[in-house]
Amino acid sequence: MSLTDALHWRYAAKRLNGEQVPEETLERIMDAARLAPSSFGLHPWSLVHVRSPELRARLHETAAPQPQVLECSDLLVFAVHDRDFKAQVDDHVAHMARTREVDESSLDGFRNMIKAVMDQKGTHEACLEWAARQAYIGMGVALSAAALEKVDASPMEGFYPETLDEALGLRDKGLKSVVIMALGYRDTERDQGAGRAKVRRAGEDFVVRLP
Amino acid sequence: MSLTDALHWRYAAKRLNGEQVPEETLERIMDAARLAPSSFGLHPWSLVHVRSPELRARLHETAAPQPQVLECSDLLVFAVHDRDFKAQVDDHVAHMARTREVDESSLDGFRNMIKAVMDQKGTHEACLEWAARQAYIGMGVALSAAALEKVDASPMEGFYPETLDEALGLRDKGLKSVVIMALGYRDTERDQGAGRAKVRRAGEDFVVRLP
Repeated sequence: MSLTDALHWRYAAKRLNGEQVPEETLERIMDAARLAPSSFGLHPWSLVHVRSPELRARLHETAAPQPQVLECSDLLVFAVHDRDFKAQVDDHVAHMARTREVDESSLDGFRNMIKAVMDQKGTHEACLEWAARQAYIGMGVALSAAALEKVDASPMEGFYPETLDEALGLRDKGLKSVVIMALGYRDTERDQGAGRAKVRRAGEDFVVRLP
Repeated sequence: MSLTDALHWRYAAKRLNGEQVPEETLERIMDAARLAPSSFGLHPWSLVHVRSPELRARLHETAAPQPQVLECSDLLVFAVHDRDFKAQVDDHVAHMARTREVDESSLDGFRNMIKAVMDQKGTHEACLEWAARQAYIGMGVALSAAALEKVDASPMEGFYPETLDEALGLRDKGLKSVVIMALGYRDTERDQGAGRAKVRRAGEDFVVRLP
């Protein structure tokens, strides 16, 4: 299936049938998120994977009351790294030097450039917001991957992040949730949204064509 | 090619060879952005397409000094809608009613829910930041589409948005650029990044596995 066809096929299913996504399929979707690009390759976010019905029930009760949370196969939490951003840059540069087998000092220009950008952002909050944008790139890639696998992916911003972070112990891991996504299979009988026409602006309204 | 393979193949090419992306390929990539999901389907952003070497040269000189801006085939600007968000909601609901051939009043609950979320965000600036996150989902989808088409996509945050908006007349259109992306083909001889190992955390570092 082409990505275009997959994107026409997909919609944010609100009711899922509880069927399990095969392990290998799930791994490919999560790996797409891992391979997603980010500014400077810093990738200042992680993916939290939740499967057990018990934990999802607790989240549903306290933090994310949508039925998808109960009815999904797997719940993914996109969480930014809530720790000093310059330390994250140092870790990234060290990792890059190891991966490419170069001396870390050869990357000092790169390191300083990223740190200067962090300085320009001014506050830790602004860096977190920037990190959230990077996570959203990853969500775009992951939901493309899911659509190509014919797995329904239902992104949700409407949840209580602090309560969810608390329930999952994310704060202790230096993580802060920004968006969540349920994976599973649409329940076409119970989902009012199933089969409804997709609402998107027409191409001529969406694309502004300059010379 | 699978999306996984495409994501391994892609990297943010810094030098491009100037070759033109075929028209149909370009349209498919832009259409993927159009079909990308967004919160409530509001899609509070547009895609600005720039092709002419003259206009790109002006942007390169004043707003975005990266070589990709000169050497790309097409430059895409992801721009959020800088206008009253509740008016955007009303437009969206009217569009949804037309598309699905239902009475607009049947969507009043949906309309009020989105407006309540806008109220919770508090300020126009917070709504713009939220709109930017939606545009980043679209960028994630568009760069997945480009990779599957074997078109290099180089996203750039490092530019002067106000200068770029001015040069492209975006303010008059109610648009505000948030990120840009060059499309084209890697120049493997001149691009120092070509062939370098991709730097990503390993799966066990990236995914936090809870029960």
